Amino acid sequence: MSASSQKLYEGKAKIFYHTDEPAVLLANFKDDATAFNAQKKGSIIDKGRINCIISSKLFQLLAENGIKTHFIDSPAPNQMRVKALKILPIEVVVRNIAAGSLCQQTSLSLGKVLLEPLVEFYYKNDQLGDPLLTLDRLNLMQLATIEQVDIINNLALQINKLLQAFFLQCGIILVDLKLEFGLDSQQQILLADEISPDTCRLWNNAETDQNNRVMDKDRFRKDLGKIEDAYKEVLHRILNAIPHQRNNWN
Amino acid sequence: MSASSQKLYEGKAKIFYHTDEPAVLLANFKDDATAFNAQKKGSIIDKGRINCIISSKLFQLLAENGIKTHFIDSPAPNQMRVKALKILPIEVVVRNIAAGSLCQQTSLSLGKVLLEPLVEFYYKNDQLGDPLLTLDRLNLMQLATIEQVDIINNLALQINKLLQAFFLQCGIILVDLKLEFGLDSQQQILLADEISPDTCRLWNNAETDQNNRVMDKDRFRKDLGKIEDAYKEVLHRILNAIPHQRNNWN
Ligand SMILES: Nc1ncnc2c1ncn2[C@@H]1O[C@H](COP(=O)(O)OP(=O)(O)O)[C@@H](O)[C@H]1O
Ligand SMILES: Nc1ncnc2c1ncn2[C@@H]1O[C@H](COP(=O)(O)OP(=O)(O)O)[C@@H](O)[C@H]1O
Ligand SMILES: [Mg+2]
Ligand SMILES: [Mg+2]
Repeated sequence: MSASSQKLYEGKAKIFYHTDEPAVLLANFKDDATAFNAQKKGSIIDKGRINCIISSKLFQLLAENGIKTHFIDSPAPNQMRVKALKILPIEVVVRNIAAGSLCQQTSLSLGKVLLEPLVEFYYKNDQLGDPLLTLDRLNLMQLATIEQVDIINNLALQINKLLQAFFLQCGIILVDLKLEFGLDSQQQILLADEISPDTCRLWNNAETDQNNRVMDKDRFRKDLGKIEDAYKEVLHRILNAIPHQRNNWN
Repeated sequence: MSASSQKLYEGKAKIFYHTDEPAVLLANFKDDATAFNAQKKGSIIDKGRINCIISSKLFQLLAENGIKTHFIDSPAPNQMRVKALKILPIEVVVRNIAAGSLCQQTSLSLGKVLLEPLVEFYYKNDQLGDPLLTLDRLNLMQLATIEQVDIINNLALQINKLLQAFFLQCGIILVDLKLEFGLDSQQQILLADEISPDTCRLWNNAETDQNNRVMDKDRFRKDLGKIEDAYKEVLHRILNAIPHQRNNWN
């Protein structure tokens, strides 16, 4: 990052900088941790580095499997160069097992395995608390076209399938994950943002205890302790599963 | 109501009693008022009587227009005999104009006229706060079959159209309304519960002031005062619009 790098925006987890190339942004992953729409705040040691490496690895894995992502490369462990996109104000959640708000808002119990993955859309709006969207509401607000929703729905299912299989190789159950998509200058839809223990629910497949199995941000949300250990363990398992891609800074 | 009448259940707005006929219930409309999932409690003088008469009139109007409802007759101003139904745990909301939770959960501003009526489903569950449903969530919980949802959707639109036109004759804009449906012993879907200023948003068409125009429970929710006057005015306008159906107790 050159001295002249201009900040584009700072979010809860990352700072985005302009680069010399207008179509490229530099994302700096922070150690800051927030939950419940930033009502709970804290910091997780080394999270920026861990989440950036995990995200980079998973984006590369997806790219190898034909999914277009914003990932370009990772100039430093906590930095990622990405394609500058117009992010769609939609958070796409894919669920394989019931957890979190799905359990709070339905009769489905925590841990209920869904017969097929559930794709849900939320309005990416911190002020409103990222509320759940129906298709009608999404259309009314014109957050995306019907064609875009259809493409995103299919991409989300593909991504979930690939990551679910990969995580299982790591001894990890992919419970759910949050995805963001953006448009490039050709209006192509690319996977953006990050894929990390901050944005996925990950359960240790060798643990049955409801608390011990948690390897993701729920450790922070629910004050389960050993947050750093969990994030580190996810990173190590991912790196072990793709040893040929290990970078020198691991 | 005979001395032997057994209470079936008491809700926030009505008490339902068994009658001598197993297929018939007696609904007793209460003056109790609640809002925000019963966090706010109060009483509106004469509400039971007013809402029961309004509901009775509107159910009769709908029946004359081919909509099957649970309404049988009204043995007293605050009492309604209805067909005993298995109520589907779904609150169906039809919206013509953006208001309430739709504005809190989307970028739509209060008063925005929708291009076409929006039918929304909520999970009728007081403990969970009647959360919004997507079709997927409704199906996952098996709250109704796909065929039933389709029938209910069409009924809701028909009912909204009939009531919207009728209220306009009364100088009232039907902003939105909440409907409940139930199944009779033949698994037929009937309109149930009540249609009243407790369950509709009604705006005086002659008033443009955001507070003055309100003729429904929002006066109670938002402490706008003159609640009783508003409910009474709605009743009077409805009775004037259908004078031939006036009962002796009006
Ligand atoms: N490739 C990209 N181009 C532009 N913006 C992006 C890209 N990827 C992610 N973003 C956006 O960067 C912002 C900052 O990220 P983050 O710190 O995670 O924000 P938030 O506080 O919204 O979670 C988010 O709004 C995110 O959608
Ligand atoms: N025809 C009917 N048969 C059986 N139950 C009914 C019928 N119509 C309405 N109900 C139910 O009666 C209950 C009591 O009504 P109400 O006091 O409005 O309850 P709530 O507190 O749920 O709003 C509600 O659960 C409602 O769904
Ligand atoms: Mg984020
Ligand atoms: Mg009710």
